[in-house]
Amino acid sequence: MPDLNPKRIIAELKELRSLTGDENGAQRVAFTPTWAKARAWLQTKLEETGAEVRRDAAGNLWATLRGQSDKALLMGGHIDSVPNGGWLDGCLNTLAALEVLRRISAEYNGKPPVTVRVVDWADEEGARFGKSLFGSSACSGNLDMDEARALKDKDGVTLAAALKEHGIDFEKVKDSGQELTNAAAYLELHIEQGPVLLDLDLPLGTVLGTFGVERHAITFKGQAAHSGSTPMNRRRDAFLAAGRMSSEIYQIAERSGNGVCTIGSCTTKPGIVTSVVDECRITLDQRHLNATALARMLSEAKEASERFAKEGKVSASWERLWQIEPVLFNDDLLRFCDEAIGETNVKPHRLPSGPLHDAAEVARAGVPTVMMFVQSLHGISHNKIEDTKEEHLEMCVRAFDKLAEKAIQWIQRL
Amino acid sequence: MPDLNPKRIIAELKELRSLTGDENGAQRVAFTPTWAKARAWLQTKLEETGAEVRRDAAGNLWATLRGQSDKALLMGGHIDSVPNGGWLDGCLNTLAALEVLRRISAEYNGKPPVTVRVVDWADEEGARFGKSLFGSSACSGNLDMDEARALKDKDGVTLAAALKEHGIDFEKVKDSGQELTNAAAYLELHIEQGPVLLDLDLPLGTVLGTFGVERHAITFKGQAAHSGSTPMNRRRDAFLAAGRMSSEIYQIAERSGNGVCTIGSCTTKPGIVTSVVDECRITLDQRHLNATALARMLSEAKEASERFAKEGKVSASWERLWQIEPVLFNDDLLRFCDEAIGETNVKPHRLPSGPLHDAAEVARAGVPTVMMFVQSLHGISHNKIEDTKEEHLEMCVRAFDKLAEKAIQWIQRL
Repeated sequence: MPDLNPKRIIAELKELRSLTGDENGAQRVAFTPTWAKARAWLQTKLEETGAEVRRDAAGNLWATLRGQSDKALLMGGHIDSVPNGGWLDGCLNTLAALEVLRRISAEYNGKPPVTVRVVDWADEEGARFGKSLFGSSACSGNLDMDEARALKDKDGVTLAAALKEHGIDFEKVKDSGQELTNAAAYLELHIEQGPVLLDLDLPLGTVLGTFGVERHAITFKGQAAHSGSTPMNRRRDAFLAAGRMSSEIYQIAERSGNGVCTIGSCTTKPGIVTSVVDECRITLDQRHLNATALARMLSEAKEASERFAKEGKVSASWERLWQIEPVLFNDDLLRFCDEAIGETNVKPHRLPSGPLHDAAEVARAGVPTVMMFVQSLHGISHNKIEDTKEEHLEMCVRAFDKLAEKAIQWIQRL
Repeated sequence: MPDLNPKRIIAELKELRSLTGDENGAQRVAFTPTWAKARAWLQTKLEETGAEVRRDAAGNLWATLRGQSDKALLMGGHIDSVPNGGWLDGCLNTLAALEVLRRISAEYNGKPPVTVRVVDWADEEGARFGKSLFGSSACSGNLDMDEARALKDKDGVTLAAALKEHGIDFEKVKDSGQELTNAAAYLELHIEQGPVLLDLDLPLGTVLGTFGVERHAITFKGQAAHSGSTPMNRRRDAFLAAGRMSSEIYQIAERSGNGVCTIGSCTTKPGIVTSVVDECRITLDQRHLNATALARMLSEAKEASERFAKEGKVSASWERLWQIEPVLFNDDLLRFCDEAIGETNVKPHRLPSGPLHDAAEVARAGVPTVMMFVQSLHGISHNKIEDTKEEHLEMCVRAFDKLAEKAIQWIQRL
């Protein structure tokens, strides 16, 4: 195919890193001046392909190359990053889509068989306001407006005020939903952010869907008592019950097949060396690709917490922090993704995504969707050491381009 | 015996509560104006017995009734309290000793066979500067001057500056040690602060000694990783290892016989719901009356932490926060205490003290020592609900007076 130049996007990723990063990593936090600078840089490059570029009501940036049909192939990513982020998370997707758009524009002399659009979602990371997938969930219609209206950053600035600074009217962000009217397929490339492909020594993977998530805080309440004068059999020790959950969740995850469970935080009250713990709060994050298995994981954790509470004469109370159902990607697109990987001389492999992505929101809005993963070194992201071999970056751009072409042919046949 | 009036000290305890407490409990934190007010009130009452009252170099208050011999019987306590404290912890001891001093002064017409002294130790609780047993450890010579010199309260005021406000020169506090020159015995009455006597339905107990304490922070170091993308078998979860300690310490305590182990606090880093715990710090407080058993408890905890660390591919590092050896009380005085309790028509019972007391410091200085416990309702102290039945308070004053008389006879025979 003419003009696809995977090395060019590696050079552009490095250019973006110089422009918007520092010695601690990427600093493209959404709705900040550095993010706006990154987007202006991206916009120029998108316009050079001949696409029409504009922003929707939620601040998502769309580049549209009108085709012979209004039916549209969408390719997306996010140029925003966490503070001190890596050089690939988010922007790889956007720049790979830019490169594929260049190839398509050249291939079809600016008029492909179907409309082709690249989207840069606004605030995937949620780093400033604590709420991820802002732009894509506004577009999909799943954004909880009341919850979002209450969001503030650490300086007390509301999300609505930050949006206004960037010319976006918070109350109208769901108008962005009209962008999906003619959407026929959505493709997203992303680094894996985990060690699965690395362990299998595979550069690329087809993503089955995104895990459903059940996220809770569990508070065990016992009784403070003097650490010297209280016999062990008279204690009502909130940390004992909470601590027993630490190994239990590994057994729950193992029984579930491919699910994961994480206790990410633990706080103790009064939290002093001379007192039995009165109250202990832990957070539990559970994820599975299968909704039934996820529900079973949750009920097993609840049962265990109640058993430990009873045995330790404490109480256990649960508070739901967040949940999302599993999102399964489109079967035809999964097959195309496998084929595209195979045609790049890489063994295809399917795996679920533990982290959420904008793709999950697009899929929830009913658009046939698939994601492709490229191997992460160290299995680490959201950190300046995040990295992927350059040969794998080149491979993923080539495979993603093949996937895009297959999707265009598929949309034509629809 | 003439003039012993246990009901009087109950009235005086209530008077002190009105004078220096509020709706949240006792507020006699050492080196504060309320504490100084309590002491002025106590000093007047001590002087009314005919005793000579003065303060030593560490701020301990001494009332001395000179006897036919310089050999001295000491009875002590502390009028300071924690913030929002109970009505008995500390001041019961001081006021019971005052009542016994009144009886002795009357009995012997102001000239007992041996010198009798009541001491109100300064800052037993350590509530403001985080260091307990200040006055008694200065007197015993065990105070770590470098450590104490660095102490500050939450407003940044140094211990030395607070002492100066009360006319005490920090650098000279160990001169108080000379007060023990002629000390022949030391007696201390205290509420149990635990549920042992309550569970046995016994009002009084003879205290065998105070537990030795090993106090450590244990830090488990793993690796932060995304809670969605990291398979369970790839995790290095610091909370998993720490959580497994929670039940292990109960087994260690059980194997030790009568020891106790407490994990009082747990902190997690980064401590967010979406990451495996990178670092988890717990505090472990271990206590036993037997030094060998205490050392075994400590080595078992270290061994367990290393085993859990190895199994979870994390590291465990230990930092000693504090330690004190077990202190065993004097055999003759233990026997007198049993007898005094029996002669009060109560079944004698011996038990160790989990909490530390000034008595441990006096015993470490080589003075024959014993303590008597009176039952605590709810097994709770350091709280406004701390309480003891009034009939038990009367019993303990009568038994403590009998113990004092036996000690006087014993000192005479020495």
